[in-house]
Amino acid sequence: MSSTFGKAIKVTLFGESHGECVGACIEGLAPGLKVDMDYMKAELAKRSARGSISTQRREADEPQIVSGILNGYTEGTPLTILIKNSSADRSAYAAMDHIARPSHADFTAQAKYLGFQDAAGGGHFSGRLTAPLVAVCSIVRRALEEKDIFIGTHINRLHDISDRAFAKDPAADIKALSAEYFPVLDPEAAQRMKSAIEKAGAAGDSLGGVLETAVTGLDAGIGEPWFDSVESELAHALFSIPAVKGVEFGAGFAITELLGSQANDPFGIKDGRIVTLTNNSGGINGGITNGMPVVFRTAVKPTASIAAKQQTVDFIKGETAEIQIAGRHDPAIVHRARAVVDSLTALVIADLYARRYGYMWLRG
Amino acid sequence: MSSTFGKAIKVTLFGESHGECVGACIEGLAPGLKVDMDYMKAELAKRSARGSISTQRREADEPQIVSGILNGYTEGTPLTILIKNSSADRSAYAAMDHIARPSHADFTAQAKYLGFQDAAGGGHFSGRLTAPLVAVCSIVRRALEEKDIFIGTHINRLHDISDRAFAKDPAADIKALSAEYFPVLDPEAAQRMKSAIEKAGAAGDSLGGVLETAVTGLDAGIGEPWFDSVESELAHALFSIPAVKGVEFGAGFAITELLGSQANDPFGIKDGRIVTLTNNSGGINGGITNGMPVVFRTAVKPTASIAAKQQTVDFIKGETAEIQIAGRHDPAIVHRARAVVDSLTALVIADLYARRYGYMWLRG
Amino acid sequence: MSSTFGKAIKVTLFGESHGECVGACIEGLAPGLKVDMDYMKAELAKRSARGSISTQRREADEPQIVSGILNGYTEGTPLTILIKNSSADRSAYAAMDHIARPSHADFTAQAKYLGFQDAAGGGHFSGRLTAPLVAVCSIVRRALEEKDIFIGTHINRLHDISDRAFAKDPAADIKALSAEYFPVLDPEAAQRMKSAIEKAGAAGDSLGGVLETAVTGLDAGIGEPWFDSVESELAHALFSIPAVKGVEFGAGFAITELLGSQANDPFGIKDGRIVTLTNNSGGINGGITNGMPVVFRTAVKPTASIAAKQQTVDFIKGETAEIQIAGRHDPAIVHRARAVVDSLTALVIADLYARRYGYMWLRG
Amino acid sequence: MSSTFGKAIKVTLFGESHGECVGACIEGLAPGLKVDMDYMKAELAKRSARGSISTQRREADEPQIVSGILNGYTEGTPLTILIKNSSADRSAYAAMDHIARPSHADFTAQAKYLGFQDAAGGGHFSGRLTAPLVAVCSIVRRALEEKDIFIGTHINRLHDISDRAFAKDPAADIKALSAEYFPVLDPEAAQRMKSAIEKAGAAGDSLGGVLETAVTGLDAGIGEPWFDSVESELAHALFSIPAVKGVEFGAGFAITELLGSQANDPFGIKDGRIVTLTNNSGGINGGITNGMPVVFRTAVKPTASIAAKQQTVDFIKGETAEIQIAGRHDPAIVHRARAVVDSLTALVIADLYARRYGYMWLRG
Repeated sequence: MSSTFGKAIKVTLFGESHGECVGACIEGLAPGLKVDMDYMKAELAKRSARGSISTQRREADEPQIVSGILNGYTEGTPLTILIKNSSADRSAYAAMDHIARPSHADFTAQAKYLGFQDAAGGGHFSGRLTAPLVAVCSIVRRALEEKDIFIGTHINRLHDISDRAFAKDPAADIKALSAEYFPVLDPEAAQRMKSAIEKAGAAGDSLGGVLETAVTGLDAGIGEPWFDSVESELAHALFSIPAVKGVEFGAGFAITELLGSQANDPFGIKDGRIVTLTNNSGGINGGITNGMPVVFRTAVKPTASIAAKQQTVDFIKGETAEIQIAGRHDPAIVHRARAVVDSLTALVIADLYARRYGYMWLRG
Repeated sequence: MSSTFGKAIKVTLFGESHGECVGACIEGLAPGLKVDMDYMKAELAKRSARGSISTQRREADEPQIVSGILNGYTEGTPLTILIKNSSADRSAYAAMDHIARPSHADFTAQAKYLGFQDAAGGGHFSGRLTAPLVAVCSIVRRALEEKDIFIGTHINRLHDISDRAFAKDPAADIKALSAEYFPVLDPEAAQRMKSAIEKAGAAGDSLGGVLETAVTGLDAGIGEPWFDSVESELAHALFSIPAVKGVEFGAGFAITELLGSQANDPFGIKDGRIVTLTNNSGGINGGITNGMPVVFRTAVKPTASIAAKQQTVDFIKGETAEIQIAGRHDPAIVHRARAVVDSLTALVIADLYARRYGYMWLRG
Repeated sequence: MSSTFGKAIKVTLFGESHGECVGACIEGLAPGLKVDMDYMKAELAKRSARGSISTQRREADEPQIVSGILNGYTEGTPLTILIKNSSADRSAYAAMDHIARPSHADFTAQAKYLGFQDAAGGGHFSGRLTAPLVAVCSIVRRALEEKDIFIGTHINRLHDISDRAFAKDPAADIKALSAEYFPVLDPEAAQRMKSAIEKAGAAGDSLGGVLETAVTGLDAGIGEPWFDSVESELAHALFSIPAVKGVEFGAGFAITELLGSQANDPFGIKDGRIVTLTNNSGGINGGITNGMPVVFRTAVKPTASIAAKQQTVDFIKGETAEIQIAGRHDPAIVHRARAVVDSLTALVIADLYARRYGYMWLRG
Repeated sequence: MSSTFGKAIKVTLFGESHGECVGACIEGLAPGLKVDMDYMKAELAKRSARGSISTQRREADEPQIVSGILNGYTEGTPLTILIKNSSADRSAYAAMDHIARPSHADFTAQAKYLGFQDAAGGGHFSGRLTAPLVAVCSIVRRALEEKDIFIGTHINRLHDISDRAFAKDPAADIKALSAEYFPVLDPEAAQRMKSAIEKAGAAGDSLGGVLETAVTGLDAGIGEPWFDSVESELAHALFSIPAVKGVEFGAGFAITELLGSQANDPFGIKDGRIVTLTNNSGGINGGITNGMPVVFRTAVKPTASIAAKQQTVDFIKGETAEIQIAGRHDPAIVHRARAVVDSLTALVIADLYARRYGYMWLRG
């Protein structure tokens, strides 16, 4: 029953959707890292619900740092951020406490917590816990950027609409994405995706998609063989995001349809540096970075909350039931999940560096 | 630099491909588990190289248990298995010590270990380390079977050849697979896959594929929210297998092309038990088992060792080079990787149960 | 830079003495444990400063549970408790920021945190962090009592004044101690100890002492050989308490002056149960409980804050200095440390049980 | 059921006294550390049984490194050492399998492992497992010495015979101890101790004692507040050594009899460096090194194996019994335990550095 992730740098998540607050505690931050509240809020804004493509539950998401900070810098001690739940109306949930929402965690929470769980809004399972997660990771991400390690994520595909691919050197794309709330490289595709989301929302339905992430500036030699491979650590983190059902690196599943002679990435030398001429490996060989951009994709399922009547069970009575979920839904969370993917990527990268070079490394 | 995985039940891997031996130590086994050497050897046999579809390096893979066992039962203390490297001819590798094999770990090992690594045969990165891994996990897998938890994996797709899907209740399929070295449900597809592998091998090339795994008999309520979700733990383990580039659960990446109303799994009641009518979630909601079969797919890239001349670098001299890899190659490892997938799945499942019910749980 | 302890049940501490709050997050609690606020407050009261034998800094220590609780029971999710710092006047500390208080953590914090630490009141090193620690552990302790596992600690010796020993069966003593703020078995010794503390306080000096703890109701077979021995785990926890400089089990250091024939605990049978006739081993053989009371002693040094002028350094200027610590001191913290010892003991015991029987075990 | 210790650098112990071998695996070693077999064997020799003051069971203790080494240097991968049990005659133990040896782990092993444990010679609990522990830690200790961090341990007191104290600067004493099998600073005291051990041995009895350790060359700022304090980590490791019943730092238990004004260590400046003028704190304030020698004492109980007839139980029959332990006993293990204390101290120090500066730090 651990809600902690990381080894040299660790995050613990706590809180419930409709409890007093959600929060996160990060350990292993070096002392003297700048805590830039504007940067943090910009990260939270990317995760927030906005416009017609998101839920109408609007939370202020005001991060309150209650430990580990002094005069705008990390102290090096555990840093805890709380975010109050201001818009937590339990009444919408009370009536359906025992009626499992399909593909939500209501039934599994019951199986696990035996009736003691807070069912409202998904309780501890709520996507709201990603808000403090993004907040604490923003300190890490900012510190990585000072070391020229940059992370960017775009919507590779929304339902059946595709964005263009990252450029071979994704640096400029990453930069462009950093300012975007709706992270799509091709503006025309972005427009079509938004329309599709609005249309699905209007129909009381929801859409999923695939996020693609690139990380630049990594040294070769980061990560470990076997269990602490870069892929293992990143996938572990990414699959903790609610709604994620797949993760692939480099050419991913498609690499299985190539011949070895097509799939292998030949090495070459560019500007005096060893590079690979293709990047089917996604920047990782044997679990360890090879100095090329780390590239991966994350499958985000359509939001489970939809307006339509669904067949389900009352898990207390043990009988079938129907459910129609009232309240405020996200017709898609792909765009909002992007901030979480970026955040966890920053955490994993920094953690892997810190295992090799110590937690002081992040200080620069 | 940890080579350990698991929390309540843990495995540590050690050894190098051309060193004295490879080995694994498993901690957290309950006392009194039967150590069935025939079962263990049958598992190892599934991982072994056989026939024309595998490398001609043939290792006896004789497991030697040097601790933690008495009279055929686990003692409850750390159990260590060694497997000697009998067929370890370093001479084939000496000449190309500094020439990175494309999409192998040679270059990244150099970046990480700074020249102190054992390069022969991939050293610590070698797939040979999966032999003791399979051996120690076989004890766990056997104990799970006594608790009616069964795991089965088939080749879902080899290059461009597909097997039929698991039956909705995969129990019979799992049983059938347990006896097969080449794990394919449709005999005709199996034949075509083998031919394709032989043909690729003859051409000095290699093929990849997708493994699909099902786990039956799981209780609802296993796993944790967030970082220790069933998906997170399984993906972490699976991505530690060399050559794995993708993992997806349930409908996986394809779920992103469904509407929420299509993707959601309605609940129903069958034989007095709560079930889902579809299984797009792969038996997992909110990171926790819902009592349906856990289903996932693992993408295994084509073997990186091929006979063709490839472009690469000499990473000591820092100049471009060509390489032609002599020696004994696997034209595909998908079928051999299956035993490793099964093994790690058993480890993760047992570990998640053990966190909830203690390491004594596995005892029955 | 981890502030987390425990494996199956874990506590993370955060906060600074003069920051907004101090807090603790506990993971691995079973769902459905009663959270008895009266019990928690009674535990906190034992740790609080009272009367003339404690500091005049008086904190309300009002525990605020912000996650993991519903309707008075644990949910099974991470449970976080905050305690506000209401009496946090930084002004007393500002002047001496760079002047290391002898035997405090000022200088070592500087060496570690490079000037980014919060120096006021010891910052993250402050004994104030034991308040939320006691609060979260009180839930565990109460649950253990429902399983007939009881923990009691008395002041074995204060400076040069000794209490009587625990009775051979310490059950009644433990019960008597549970109601006492000043935990001494012999009332006359208690009186003399209090007088000594008052006298030391009046002289601007401080006293230390030895706490002795007994745990009853433990099964034989708890704990692990080697690194997770009961002694290792308890000592690890106890040495995390500021001011603790020694820990010994059973006969402790004095056992080294016995012959083996005197030190060994003969086994016998009492009421059909295997017992030892003496308890020099402190209830632990080979790191594992033998079913007898676990008994240990913890050395608590005299409070480092004293009124006298002391020789020290200005660690920024790098020159010698004198310091006279103004403010509110504890002339002794031995009695207050007792609640922390009890709390950590409960945590360790529950954690060791939970590794063997799972986190659900605590539920009963 | 973990037999692993450490975070950035970790050791796992395995094996049984009368099984095939005992072994240890160390993870987190930087690549390129010299593996000096002479140094390792010298360390093992200090732990070995010699002369009339030790058991007559004489093991060759030939360390066999089976992974993680190439050309005399660490590779950076897990390094496993096996030591065969050459003198493992089970027959001496078979008759008394169910008769608990007092103050041994026989009964607790039964309670824990339910009859599946290897009882011969203590099985997994045997002090023999410290042989591979010393072997793997010798690599760490040697690397620390190249960084001018030196560790030395002497017998502070054997039964009732005291050695002289460490000099205030213990460097020369540490150096002198490094060559001694029987580590005592005062030659006359050494002679008296040996005579006392021989006499106890001749009487079929055993003696205990107190080891005192000093570590020089440490930077200020190593260790963590709270749970990963230097004291917590060292005590955790030390209490894993069989027979250890007490650990104290600096003035230890005696500090409780001092006034705060006597106990505090005033700071001063010497050769431009901040020092403390006394070292009652044992080089640690707030859990963190202050740059002074770290000093601690470890209480080692008299060997539990004695020749005299003892009262005990047959734990299978559940009835009282008598036992007279035949075979080869150590009349004292204090001198042999010293190598284990040194080894674990090296491991803990290196691990704490590695958390802060990474596992690459040990490389120099």
